[in-house]
Amino acid sequence: MKSEIIAVGSEMLTPWRQDTNSLYLTEKLNELGVTVAFKTIVGDRQRDLVSTIQTALGRTDIVAIMGGLGPTEDDLTREAVAEALSLTLRRDASQLAALHARAATWRIPMPANNQKQADVLDSATVLANPNGSAPGQWLDVTYSGYRKLLMLLPGPPNECKPLFDEACLPLLRQVLPVRHIAKRTLRAAMIPESQADSLLAPIYTAYKDVETTILAHAGDIQLTLLCSKSNLETAQKRVDELAGRMEEALDEYLYSSHGENLEQIVLDYLGLRQATLAVAESCTGGMIAQRITGVSGSSRSFLGGAIVYSNEMKTTLAGVPYELITQHGAVSAEVARALAHGIRLRTGATIGLGITGIAGPTGGTETKPVGLVHIAVSDAQKTDTLERTFRGDRERVRQWATQQALDMIRRRLM
Amino acid sequence: MKSEIIAVGSEMLTPWRQDTNSLYLTEKLNELGVTVAFKTIVGDRQRDLVSTIQTALGRTDIVAIMGGLGPTEDDLTREAVAEALSLTLRRDASQLAALHARAATWRIPMPANNQKQADVLDSATVLANPNGSAPGQWLDVTYSGYRKLLMLLPGPPNECKPLFDEACLPLLRQVLPVRHIAKRTLRAAMIPESQADSLLAPIYTAYKDVETTILAHAGDIQLTLLCSKSNLETAQKRVDELAGRMEEALDEYLYSSHGENLEQIVLDYLGLRQATLAVAESCTGGMIAQRITGVSGSSRSFLGGAIVYSNEMKTTLAGVPYELITQHGAVSAEVARALAHGIRLRTGATIGLGITGIAGPTGGTETKPVGLVHIAVSDAQKTDTLERTFRGDRERVRQWATQQALDMIRRRLM
Repeated sequence: MKSEIIAVGSEMLTPWRQDTNSLYLTEKLNELGVTVAFKTIVGDRQRDLVSTIQTALGRTDIVAIMGGLGPTEDDLTREAVAEALSLTLRRDASQLAALHARAATWRIPMPANNQKQADVLDSATVLANPNGSAPGQWLDVTYSGYRKLLMLLPGPPNECKPLFDEACLPLLRQVLPVRHIAKRTLRAAMIPESQADSLLAPIYTAYKDVETTILAHAGDIQLTLLCSKSNLETAQKRVDELAGRMEEALDEYLYSSHGENLEQIVLDYLGLRQATLAVAESCTGGMIAQRITGVSGSSRSFLGGAIVYSNEMKTTLAGVPYELITQHGAVSAEVARALAHGIRLRTGATIGLGITGIAGPTGGTETKPVGLVHIAVSDAQKTDTLERTFRGDRERVRQWATQQALDMIRRRLM
Repeated sequence: MKSEIIAVGSEMLTPWRQDTNSLYLTEKLNELGVTVAFKTIVGDRQRDLVSTIQTALGRTDIVAIMGGLGPTEDDLTREAVAEALSLTLRRDASQLAALHARAATWRIPMPANNQKQADVLDSATVLANPNGSAPGQWLDVTYSGYRKLLMLLPGPPNECKPLFDEACLPLLRQVLPVRHIAKRTLRAAMIPESQADSLLAPIYTAYKDVETTILAHAGDIQLTLLCSKSNLETAQKRVDELAGRMEEALDEYLYSSHGENLEQIVLDYLGLRQATLAVAESCTGGMIAQRITGVSGSSRSFLGGAIVYSNEMKTTLAGVPYELITQHGAVSAEVARALAHGIRLRTGATIGLGITGIAGPTGGTETKPVGLVHIAVSDAQKTDTLERTFRGDRERVRQWATQQALDMIRRRLM
């Protein structure tokens, strides 16, 4: 079953606002075995709306339309659906009474334009909306000879999501064949996307019944495996089999078999080893600590650290000998090593991380270009260092450097 | 002129990922007087892609397609555009050479599947992509008797945005009629959204020819004023007049008259006062430092600081007397004050910031609930403290606390 989600509202065609409801609806639809094949965002113009609705009905089986159910002149979804499907709109007496009752609880007379929210499409099931004035509507119709399901939902997320859950999901479950969906998420760090793809494509393309999605972002690769079958056990078996083969191929790049993020995995390993971590960050300026402390409960294994943005701070807060900086430069393996070692001693952490680099866009030289990063991980036994040069703008260099640093800690703990 | 933005990629039809490039492109297109009438998100299926492209060409004049230009089997944008417009694809020798050269700088042989990135549509202008392997393409074609402009752009934001700016904007400017758009962005901190709106709505609604957009996020309010006239001077005058009245109404909440973010403004003030800053962060765990160091050149005024996640670290790294913690608790005005004072003394900074709180979701008590944050700002003259309780999840509490801390420094420096 294919579906399309249509978000209605000119504000979502500005540079500042985005539809977010569709992410929620997608998750719920996927769980019913319904694929979201298209998402469309359209403004408050009836002609555009009608053509969008007709296009959606022509290419999918289920269409969810969010927004445009309010009381203003710009709210045209009801009218557009009526036109697209050649249905009539009637003003529903009980809906009108409900609108008056709602206005009364606010102790205001109901504005005249509110009445249009009581307009109901012929043959529609009205979906009561406890969180707003506009009810939703459900249509089970024939369009060009095919059966189509249409949902009209209000735009505000606090109305749209509960209405979908409480009114649409039960109706969808009645109509749709029972499907069981098995899902797995694998994650890998610091493997080039093209390398991941050439490793994995020969594997997952052999599993036509499992939908594999690869997402890559700043050194992080997320693989989502979805399989829908009439039997859950069969679906789960297929997903787990494919996941197992992919895990093997990814080998030590793989850090998570069930979707946890890298900072969570680092914290899990630290917990298992009863180890603690402290960081001394120069170029990443707190980004590593911020990612780790984003995890609830991180205080059990993460002690803290120093942001050593100036040379003086490298000495004052992390105990880097000043001569080392003058001799090798602040961006050097030696200083990274001294940062990791120094912060470990100062804090008493089991593991110290040191990072120094040139985030850019200025500050690069011929021998030390923008993007150059030195990372060191130190424990009581040894200190490892790693030199990498990342491409991209300041933000991106910092994101890659942060990911690389977390991965280096993970590998040390593995 | 109407345009449609198409984002290609099955990952954007999952519950986990959203197109964000389109916000950027919308801003740039609007500045050229081009309306974005539709946005469509479509998966990596050639049939769906072809129909989406044809629908877009049928209803708009300018179509921007982002994504699907990579080297994998799922990257089908080039093939789909060829089919939609009945154009042929040819493998371009100079593009192929560029791909080989690019692989060489990574010291890897070019994977065979990369070659398809050298496929160019008949009559297309190739748009060199300095940030990735897939070039963009520009088409100026006739479709069903009408002139249409088509842009093929890579999906990764760090490739898409610069390529649009550097290659597509100049080409669009050649084709489109000259429009004059005046724009101003004002920003304010820590003013409740409803208070901002009731202050500002009576002002901006009187300027019908200026489009005002209000955006609120975690204590930050951004007001964008846009005015399009045949004469730039007239447009600018209207925008500046409205901006002046809004600035007056916002008073000390206003921190930026030309769109700079709060961390930039804090750094500007520090520079003006020849002052330096150091931070001691507990609950925000590096988020404040990370925001500040996100600004290029921040090292001139930002020394660094300590992430003092455990009680011991508050003592070890920021010199908070241990008795103070046992007496008042780690989340207290006294400890915030000692953090600010301590980090200032340790680092020699002009200004020290201390922050401690309960980010949640666990760790709250009846007297110290989740969301409680104490912030202190200290200089040689005095130390101020502030207590706030923020609502929302861990991430949101940390974002609000970070914003409040930066605003407190700004107000001290004002």
